[in-house]
Amino acid sequence: MSVDHFKKLLLLLIAYKCCRCLEAIKNGTTPNIIIMLMDDMGWGDLGVFGQPSKETPNLDRMAAEGMLFPNFYTANPLCSPSRAALLTGRLPVRNGFYTTNGHGRNAYTPQEIVGGIAQDEVLLPEMLRKASYVSKIVGKWHLGHRPGFLPLEHGFDEWFGSPNCHFGPYNNSDRPNIPVYKNSQMVGRYYEEFGINLKTGESNLTQIYLEESLVFIRSQATAHQPFFLYWAVDATHAPVYASKGFLGKSQRGRYGDAVMELDHGVGVILGELRSLGLAEDTFVFFTSDNGAALISAPMQGGSNGPFLCGKQTTFEGGMREPAIAWWPGHIPAGTVSHQLGTVMDLFTTSLALAGLATPGDRIIDGLDLTSVLLNSTLIDRPIFYYRGNVLMAVRLGMYKAHYWTWTNSMEEFKKGINFCPGEEVVGVTTHEQKEHTMQPLIFNLGWDPGEKYPISVLSPEYQTALQQITPVLEQHQKHLLPGVPQLNMCDLAVMNWAPPGCEKLAKCLKGPKSEPWKCHWPH
Amino acid sequence: MSVDHFKKLLLLLIAYKCCRCLEAIKNGTTPNIIIMLMDDMGWGDLGVFGQPSKETPNLDRMAAEGMLFPNFYTANPLCSPSRAALLTGRLPVRNGFYTTNGHGRNAYTPQEIVGGIAQDEVLLPEMLRKASYVSKIVGKWHLGHRPGFLPLEHGFDEWFGSPNCHFGPYNNSDRPNIPVYKNSQMVGRYYEEFGINLKTGESNLTQIYLEESLVFIRSQATAHQPFFLYWAVDATHAPVYASKGFLGKSQRGRYGDAVMELDHGVGVILGELRSLGLAEDTFVFFTSDNGAALISAPMQGGSNGPFLCGKQTTFEGGMREPAIAWWPGHIPAGTVSHQLGTVMDLFTTSLALAGLATPGDRIIDGLDLTSVLLNSTLIDRPIFYYRGNVLMAVRLGMYKAHYWTWTNSMEEFKKGINFCPGEEVVGVTTHEQKEHTMQPLIFNLGWDPGEKYPISVLSPEYQTALQQITPVLEQHQKHLLPGVPQLNMCDLAVMNWAPPGCEKLAKCLKGPKSEPWKCHWPH
Repeated sequence: MSVDHFKKLLLLLIAYKCCRCLEAIKNGTTPNIIIMLMDDMGWGDLGVFGQPSKETPNLDRMAAEGMLFPNFYTANPLCSPSRAALLTGRLPVRNGFYTTNGHGRNAYTPQEIVGGIAQDEVLLPEMLRKASYVSKIVGKWHLGHRPGFLPLEHGFDEWFGSPNCHFGPYNNSDRPNIPVYKNSQMVGRYYEEFGINLKTGESNLTQIYLEESLVFIRSQATAHQPFFLYWAVDATHAPVYASKGFLGKSQRGRYGDAVMELDHGVGVILGELRSLGLAEDTFVFFTSDNGAALISAPMQGGSNGPFLCGKQTTFEGGMREPAIAWWPGHIPAGTVSHQLGTVMDLFTTSLALAGLATPGDRIIDGLDLTSVLLNSTLIDRPIFYYRGNVLMAVRLGMYKAHYWTWTNSMEEFKKGINFCPGEEVVGVTTHEQKEHTMQPLIFNLGWDPGEKYPISVLSPEYQTALQQITPVLEQHQKHLLPGVPQLNMCDLAVMNWAPPGCEKLAKCLKGPKSEPWKCHWPH
Repeated sequence: MSVDHFKKLLLLLIAYKCCRCLEAIKNGTTPNIIIMLMDDMGWGDLGVFGQPSKETPNLDRMAAEGMLFPNFYTANPLCSPSRAALLTGRLPVRNGFYTTNGHGRNAYTPQEIVGGIAQDEVLLPEMLRKASYVSKIVGKWHLGHRPGFLPLEHGFDEWFGSPNCHFGPYNNSDRPNIPVYKNSQMVGRYYEEFGINLKTGESNLTQIYLEESLVFIRSQATAHQPFFLYWAVDATHAPVYASKGFLGKSQRGRYGDAVMELDHGVGVILGELRSLGLAEDTFVFFTSDNGAALISAPMQGGSNGPFLCGKQTTFEGGMREPAIAWWPGHIPAGTVSHQLGTVMDLFTTSLALAGLATPGDRIIDGLDLTSVLLNSTLIDRPIFYYRGNVLMAVRLGMYKAHYWTWTNSMEEFKKGINFCPGEEVVGVTTHEQKEHTMQPLIFNLGWDPGEKYPISVLSPEYQTALQQITPVLEQHQKHLLPGVPQLNMCDLAVMNWAPPGCEKLAKCLKGPKSEPWKCHWPH
């Protein structure tokens, strides 16, 4: 066989494989899409990822019936940027959900900000509408809470949930509690119409979010309408809550109870799809927005399994997420994919499943994972780990190079705010922002998933890794056109410093009888 | 219903349950028994316990077809005492596999000792012989290597393997390499007839051990002979090895390759049982002798998942083991049992399965787990964590009380010997032997499996836990009649000190050109 003949055969084979993907999708007449996004749930919180208390029989079954991704990442170790990335398919540094007013500063959208997701960003439900999908978000939005930034203005047809975290309760005259919406209508507030008992941890919010999802699924099924459900539940975000039937049921206290209730919800939704005969017509993906919040552990925070540190950091514990894909009859059951995936891939993959192309006028970071899902292929691609606009680390294959290391400031740490409790890796879990750009710290995540043993810079392995990663890094930075940063507001809750323009606020907040809502918030 | 009537009903119910167990066993006409004991494999090395590299599809399937035990323990964080406990059903402090010549000193049986398992200890194969079982040990024995202490003198009918660890290669004139036996015949030595290439990690020992097991299983099947196979493979103990077909196949390097080969072996053995029609007639239990040896990590040591520290310590990482029970048609498939179990239970449970009672003339620490396995019951029982003859900790329910904490000496630690790499829990991972007998450190392993957050001594939870544990501790210590210690020999490889009588040897070993085999070893 000549080389040309061989090449032709290879191309035919590739074409055949692609055809098979498309055919599978076409035959299914574009599946419904459900993205189940947990809040601060860690990689190690699932039974199938080693949680000793084994609270997730439904997720474990979902994995046994679907594809498990042990190497799946968020785009940022904090909630808002992660969610913006998922819905836009773009890194926060492109879609604007980042800061420039503090080096390596993570930021989210607290109640105080006026902004949110930029108008020229195109969100997944907006795109899916082109293929006649009806979209609903149930739960937490977190891309801005003022008019112009709300879900129904960005492609969702329905919404039940809240624009922000369920922090509170607040003083209702100076600072109102966080609102809960049904579509464009405010239907109540947390701690008022939608109770969360901080003392007992009781709240029936997860049950409400489950019921809202079931009603939506059923009505779309009746209408034979393709749908996108974004199930953004938040019971595992502090203050952690669970409903009466689940409180006290786990070995882990309130946090485990919340996990059990969410796992039960997953089981109910998958069961409903089966009952409605929609299981083979619905692509379901389960993941989380960032690593477990170890600052809230052990009572209000989860587990990142064998990975270093947690939420807020660009170590694996902050960014590696539990991930399961489920689509019976299409995705081979009981498989494990070592594909490096990201939440941004859910944007691109969902579009591919709906038979749509990604927007052609911008860089999309998400990959189309359909061949991974349907044919168990592996696609070579890097993972970028950002804090604010600082590229902290890059993963390529099994190698991860850290250009900056940081946990949190020594000042914060001394106050007991610890992103890596019980963990200390000298020169790695640093409390100053340590630059390694000239000679990155490199780990082999294959034999060292816990980032404990930097590869010696003198070893051939280091040189090989560096030679592989450097051009990928350069290529990324060369083509990077950062978006306009949307989160440069004062937010002293996240980082214990005062960005420029926030000094007065900082002083007020640190005053002797600090009542944040009485301080003047510059916009 | 009167109280007496209720009691009668309860007794009937218990009797009925016991009958059901016995009936199930009787119907199966006493199953064959296979204990698969890994060497230094950690809890976190199995896919089903969260190893990100997911190297164990066969073990994961075994768990899906059987019962998983996330709360299963060894009896000592070192190999010899652990193995002695498994085979006698007794704590090392009772069966003599412990030391008194150094506080909290772990010890094993290196090549130098003259002693081994005491003659008056009764081992599992000796007992099973009474029920006409034929027993074979394949792999590492570790209960003594001189006449009087070998497997065939303690109830095993067949043996293929070695009395000691596969350390070496040694200088063959002054100090011979470790022998390999087939029954009572020495058939070669490690690094000679049985090669282990320390440079490449290649050795086909696991394949030999697999073949030896298969031949045994087949011949017992042909003879319709009930059998006990003790598959004590050691590829995951440093120096870690794998055969050619597995080297380089895992993401974790040589250690992961070894795990993959052992997992493959598990699959082959279970497959053979199925082919022979013996699956429903064979009780198989998979576990490990102690936690992963983090001193050998990352290249030659495994993972203890979310647990603290590793081998040699009485933190969970040292003593909690991966554990799966498999007996299709008897043990319900895909179940998780939170029963606290120990390797000593394998003694008692195996006897129960064979229809035998435990020896009546001594204290047996192992529990009969048949009701747990067959009816998913839970039995309340404590776990005792020893180093030497020092009771370091006690677990009861979710609570674990540490009476002594210690990792290793500061002297050792400063030399780079680290039992808890990357981990540091202030006041817990201590480098001095810290006594807490007056006020134990108590952890709730439910919400704190990683032993990072001692419960405040001022909290009601602390008082409750202490009140539950104290009488259990007192009861244990009141009835404890320690056996004659068998391991008070000089062994400077394990602990960096010189027990009484070993001073001269210590000096010689620490000499300028230390060649251990040239030093005089006092007996």
